[in-house]
Amino acid sequence: MSAHPRFSLNQATVKYASLAEAIDVTKAAGIESIGVWREPVADIGLDAATRLIADSGLRVSSLCRAGFFTTPEGQERMAALDDNRRAIDETAALAAAGAAGSAAVLVLVAGGLPAGSRDLKGARERVRDALGALEPFAASAGVTLAVEALHPMFAADRAVVSTLGQAIDLAVDAGPSVGVVVDTYHVWWDPDVFEQIERAGRLGRIASYQVCDWLTPLPADVLLGRGVPGDGHIDFGGLTRAVEDAGYTGDIECEIFNADVWSRPYAEVACEVSAAFTRVVAPELL
Amino acid sequence: MSAHPRFSLNQATVKYASLAEAIDVTKAAGIESIGVWREPVADIGLDAATRLIADSGLRVSSLCRAGFFTTPEGQERMAALDDNRRAIDETAALAAAGAAGSAAVLVLVAGGLPAGSRDLKGARERVRDALGALEPFAASAGVTLAVEALHPMFAADRAVVSTLGQAIDLAVDAGPSVGVVVDTYHVWWDPDVFEQIERAGRLGRIASYQVCDWLTPLPADVLLGRGVPGDGHIDFGGLTRAVEDAGYTGDIECEIFNADVWSRPYAEVACEVSAAFTRVVAPELL
Repeated sequence: MSAHPRFSLNQATVKYASLAEAIDVTKAAGIESIGVWREPVADIGLDAATRLIADSGLRVSSLCRAGFFTTPEGQERMAALDDNRRAIDETAALAAAGAAGSAAVLVLVAGGLPAGSRDLKGARERVRDALGALEPFAASAGVTLAVEALHPMFAADRAVVSTLGQAIDLAVDAGPSVGVVVDTYHVWWDPDVFEQIERAGRLGRIASYQVCDWLTPLPADVLLGRGVPGDGHIDFGGLTRAVEDAGYTGDIECEIFNADVWSRPYAEVACEVSAAFTRVVAPELL
Repeated sequence: MSAHPRFSLNQATVKYASLAEAIDVTKAAGIESIGVWREPVADIGLDAATRLIADSGLRVSSLCRAGFFTTPEGQERMAALDDNRRAIDETAALAAAGAAGSAAVLVLVAGGLPAGSRDLKGARERVRDALGALEPFAASAGVTLAVEALHPMFAADRAVVSTLGQAIDLAVDAGPSVGVVVDTYHVWWDPDVFEQIERAGRLGRIASYQVCDWLTPLPADVLLGRGVPGDGHIDFGGLTRAVEDAGYTGDIECEIFNADVWSRPYAEVACEVSAAFTRVVAPELL
């Protein structure tokens, strides 16, 4: 098996695999890079995880995820910021353990409206404040914080950062160690997406590019409606060319939240997603 | 029963009511205005519908809905444009039959990607072309075409117009008889929404203001997740003040797609929604 050299399997695509299992199927599929999630790292501890990564010879393309910045001042917010600092350290350790070309990138999900709150503007300001507070810590750890805009259908309950343009604004305000994730699933609908990809590139802020497809009808749990590239409505050609033209040269992750995909053998999923990437995304790469 | 003088019951809120039944519950709830849908008008014919409206003494705040402009050139597209011309005539007739202060406003939903297509840009250009073709017809009928941005989660299958800013751009390009709908459910998440409401007002393009709430979790059919104002996550104060400040003085419709709401007695729904409007939206009105 061989895979495109820039393809990275995000661990969420094989959600129920342990880190060891995810590494095994990634390597067996000829994939050179992996996007790691914090939960399976925590399951075995950071030291064991970095050893597994170092022994694997794989690159690490990102660590998912921290963030959840929208809680008002107080104990819970301080705990969230502490957790983000731990995640920054984990990101640095895992990237250092990965093969050359690994990216010390921590993906951040903003968090939704606090329970009972309708103050969207206030929640967004707290995200800005948190990024400003964390940026110096990330900079000194050599880690890039990657703000991920989530699709606007998640604005109430998951992420108050809803557009790529908004994510770029936040990154620019916070400082040089903050960038953005361009995830096709979350941004494909945006009339400004090409202009904002160009802008993110010009400002040197594209920290991660993730591909997955938009399926219809949406499933009962909309969180799980993501599809393998090519199975849905997204034009990966246009978006991938735009990200390339914007100067992004890093690994490209495929991250699929989908109950059907999760129920299948990990090795089969890794091969299928890699083949889809080769067919749908790779032809647009320089 | 009395209702706020600017409150209008959109017929979709009592989806299974005939026009006669919808008029009855609207009047019984003391509501002065109704937003009419084309299907219940077609069920009895336009002549009978205009007589019912004239006899009711109610204002007509809009006719829902036409549009569906994204089909490529050919028979189906010509049929869609013909249907829009018929809808324009219906709008003029119903508004003329309504009480003083009725609005000859036709709500337009853009349509989704054609089957099998991933050309979002092309679909959006066809919306622009269709609006340009229909504007003179609307102008001569004295009708305002109101482009409704639908929430981005509907971009693939229902409406490729996804933001208020994009709707305003389309309206401005098409000519003076094209405006926009501001629907809280569809635009509340948008980081640019206040700027765009101000812009729409400055350009004289707010043709309709609709209120309904965003509930979580989204139901299995996301089309039916709309809530009575106050039951969800939307700050109606901020959005309503912005629409008021932008100079909108027309009726304000409550349009709720929700299977639970639809299953209840029409009269009860009309009263509950009117009371919610009085409680949540009316305090912000000048």
